[in-house]
Amino acid sequence: MSSDLSIQRSASAVEPALVINRILEAGVRKAPNQTITYNGRDYTYREFEERVHRLAGALAAQGIKPGDTVAVMDWDTNRYLEAFFAIPMMGAVLHTVNVRLSPEQILYTINHAKDDAILVNSEFLPVLEELKDRIEPVKTYILLDDDGVKGSDSLPLAGEYEALLADAPARYAFPELDENTRATTFYTTGTTGLPKGVYFSHRQLVLHTFAGRNTMSGVGQGRFNEDDVYMPITPMFHVHAWGIPYMATLMGVQQVYPGRYEPATLLKLLVSKKVTFSHCVPTIIQMLLQAEAAKSVDLSGWKVIIGGSALPKALAMGALERGIDIYTGYGMSETCPLLTLAQLTPELENADLETQADYRTRTGRPVAMVQLRIVDGEMNDVPHDGKSQGEVVVRAPWLTQGYLNDPEKSEELWAGGWLHTGDVAVMSDDGWLKIVDRIKDVIKTGGEWVSSIDLEGLVLQHPGVGECAVVGVPDAKWGERPVALVVKSGDADEEGIKALIADYAEKGIISRYGIPDRVIFVDALPRTSVGKLDKKKMRAEMV
Amino acid sequence: MSSDLSIQRSASAVEPALVINRILEAGVRKAPNQTITYNGRDYTYREFEERVHRLAGALAAQGIKPGDTVAVMDWDTNRYLEAFFAIPMMGAVLHTVNVRLSPEQILYTINHAKDDAILVNSEFLPVLEELKDRIEPVKTYILLDDDGVKGSDSLPLAGEYEALLADAPARYAFPELDENTRATTFYTTGTTGLPKGVYFSHRQLVLHTFAGRNTMSGVGQGRFNEDDVYMPITPMFHVHAWGIPYMATLMGVQQVYPGRYEPATLLKLLVSKKVTFSHCVPTIIQMLLQAEAAKSVDLSGWKVIIGGSALPKALAMGALERGIDIYTGYGMSETCPLLTLAQLTPELENADLETQADYRTRTGRPVAMVQLRIVDGEMNDVPHDGKSQGEVVVRAPWLTQGYLNDPEKSEELWAGGWLHTGDVAVMSDDGWLKIVDRIKDVIKTGGEWVSSIDLEGLVLQHPGVGECAVVGVPDAKWGERPVALVVKSGDADEEGIKALIADYAEKGIISRYGIPDRVIFVDALPRTSVGKLDKKKMRAEMV
Repeated sequence: MSSDLSIQRSASAVEPALVINRILEAGVRKAPNQTITYNGRDYTYREFEERVHRLAGALAAQGIKPGDTVAVMDWDTNRYLEAFFAIPMMGAVLHTVNVRLSPEQILYTINHAKDDAILVNSEFLPVLEELKDRIEPVKTYILLDDDGVKGSDSLPLAGEYEALLADAPARYAFPELDENTRATTFYTTGTTGLPKGVYFSHRQLVLHTFAGRNTMSGVGQGRFNEDDVYMPITPMFHVHAWGIPYMATLMGVQQVYPGRYEPATLLKLLVSKKVTFSHCVPTIIQMLLQAEAAKSVDLSGWKVIIGGSALPKALAMGALERGIDIYTGYGMSETCPLLTLAQLTPELENADLETQADYRTRTGRPVAMVQLRIVDGEMNDVPHDGKSQGEVVVRAPWLTQGYLNDPEKSEELWAGGWLHTGDVAVMSDDGWLKIVDRIKDVIKTGGEWVSSIDLEGLVLQHPGVGECAVVGVPDAKWGERPVALVVKSGDADEEGIKALIADYAEKGIISRYGIPDRVIFVDALPRTSVGKLDKKKMRAEMV
Repeated sequence: MSSDLSIQRSASAVEPALVINRILEAGVRKAPNQTITYNGRDYTYREFEERVHRLAGALAAQGIKPGDTVAVMDWDTNRYLEAFFAIPMMGAVLHTVNVRLSPEQILYTINHAKDDAILVNSEFLPVLEELKDRIEPVKTYILLDDDGVKGSDSLPLAGEYEALLADAPARYAFPELDENTRATTFYTTGTTGLPKGVYFSHRQLVLHTFAGRNTMSGVGQGRFNEDDVYMPITPMFHVHAWGIPYMATLMGVQQVYPGRYEPATLLKLLVSKKVTFSHCVPTIIQMLLQAEAAKSVDLSGWKVIIGGSALPKALAMGALERGIDIYTGYGMSETCPLLTLAQLTPELENADLETQADYRTRTGRPVAMVQLRIVDGEMNDVPHDGKSQGEVVVRAPWLTQGYLNDPEKSEELWAGGWLHTGDVAVMSDDGWLKIVDRIKDVIKTGGEWVSSIDLEGLVLQHPGVGECAVVGVPDAKWGERPVALVVKSGDADEEGIKALIADYAEKGIISRYGIPDRVIFVDALPRTSVGKLDKKKMRAEMV
């Protein structure tokens, strides 16, 4: 990291490393009496800091040392936030286990990450008891409990979290770490294949936190500031709850942790704690809006970032009409995750709700320090005209530098020195990104990219079409050609559907290469176990 | 920078360097049509970005290459802001010349910094013409002109700035730089000795900008946000105008550059551009408040950070009564400069003006990522009790790593691995820093530190004392002993003054070691050429 052009360093000079200790220090210094709430208890930031020290001491007493990996299996709690800091600050790696995975997948990630210890909520004890004999690396289990569970029949527990903290010293001498020390790891699951581990260093978390704070805070629509009350509704095991707990701590914000996501609990906390800032997947907000109990609750002024999947415009309108300041954020496990945010510009803040919803449901504009390109198959930039499609590839100072112990998939992810998101998007000339498809679902035909999602939307305009899926099938001449699978809801035939799409192509709404080669009528579309369209299966059946 | 605990990096993965290119990119992406004003002309951020590219191209055409040093001698202009980015982004070093130094000092800094080129405002041509034969390294001079000056009789000018930009290409291929590349340099002058060069890397400027943004922005008193209109009144040659132009650019804020600081111009711009955020030394705000033209101007809502020297409480009250949101920032040339800010906590915002003024005139609370200690002579931390004095020593990711080509002074600055500010301070238990003296002016007596400034304040309480200066003189038994020099304004004698201080000591307001050994009555206090108390001279005369 030194060249002829580098600054001179005198022998005694110190340039401190970017470590997350500084985030905790800043928050406690700024707001020592601010609170963090879980399960009806408020902890001040000062208490929180002491508990971080105690947790490190308790883990050290169990033999945890720099380079070890400590897993957590918990819902969203103050304990998890303590682990967010204490474990990386010790020089150990925090493995945030996705507790929604199948037991077999959980087993795979524990063994693959080489977890030395697991902090486990009593609710998940049965899973570990079942897997126990096949868990290879773990030496220590620590119980996290809200329900009076005291032990396990078969799992050797070192103790209960609160008791261990009470026994630990109030100060722990955290080591001085290199900023490239691995701080966190977790696993991302595709529709197929084994879970893949991503990982982030102290430096990456610090830069993600400061750049996120820069974009998310300030004045204007949807900003997250010191006077907000924060409650995550994206699990802390999922990309560190988008890294927002780190930003909240940096700012000294009041934080509320809801445990497991029960609509009744969430609504109760929203009201009683006057929560003003959250983030979640579209399903959660839909569930809350539809909950009977939510109908009488004033949700106006609640700022919510939506990520994980596209925010449907109708849902955005429904939320806006309830006064919720809803907008999209974009990123993925591999990107820590923040890449873009759909914050309105000052001009758009005065637009009507319909126009606002159009922008709020886009993928957004890149966060500071993110370099974002939309490229064709040869890594050439496509025009920023709101129409030309390409894959989103990115660089930023906080992207996973590979998949853990998987050089082959790592090279694929980073082909050409840019991280490949696998998302297909268009960019407007005013710098707004809009994801239109996953690259695997794009149909590459006649030298053009046709979005299967766009095409499905147009086929659904036909009055006789109830459901539709479009896939690309290999074609010697054109590369691929689109084929539509349709579930009828009324009168529909192949010619009529093709004529409809040809009509849209005539109007310039879709490429003429988008007119399907074939329309196949089926009784039901193939779906995966979680209800997503199974295009992999469709393609396989059609070849 | 890699250890056993470091993250894995796949061969193709890229972790981008922290370079100031990203600051410019973020601002332009966020607010392409926002403006930067100088001399009656508005430039959009998009134009500004293009001018940065053109400036780099123009300098490259003059032979400037990575590692070269390019000096600027200008007042506060859009050109200077362009140089803030273009020169470091080329891999060259920006030398911001303090145009207020004497010609001999300017000559020294140009030769010491090994400037390859100088961009010079026509106003300073006579200085360079005079020094010409003794300037060693400079190969190219470029004229900056607002007054119709076309050339120089004796200085070989490569051309005028605007003409060279017009001839340069609109895009420049900036190199990919290591983040530790030196970006800027400038000289700090003590009361004695040669100017000393400090220097900052791209990484340091980026981190200073993001951490500064984190502390300065958001909600609450004195915050600097996207909707502000920014006008610096600290020269751009002085610690990059405190680095705030970089923060303003990151945020896409409207910027107004005033050129030379004439009260009439400043007031006109304040009103016509609706400036809301500035920073300056106390003298400037005093001058503005006293200017006849300012009496009819509404200054309410103008946020002003005061630095450079202590903000007197009476001046703060005067400004607050005019509705100016005035508060202190602390730092120095060696620290890039930001270390602390005296932003009020939410509770203090509701306090009466008197209480507010008390906090606003303190040195403040540390900015995120700054590690700040107050230590005694053996580097032990003193208690944070609001009373115990010690030297302020700091670490932060943006401190100069030495003095340019001066290993001896560098080691002194960084003795013990902490940067020594030379300032003596107390820290209250709620984390507020208050500078009480310069370490050279502190009197170390009987194992205690007595602030000469505190003691002077108490002596001045005597009705017969008009002016007072206290210095420490060597003492075999006590180390040092205080001696007071007094200019009478009425009846005063040595016994009476000693009795007054003894009385304060009795009440615990000052240490009993603070009672002066001697009181010497003089007609006038020795002062330096710029009117500061010349304690060096006083001490020398008394030994």
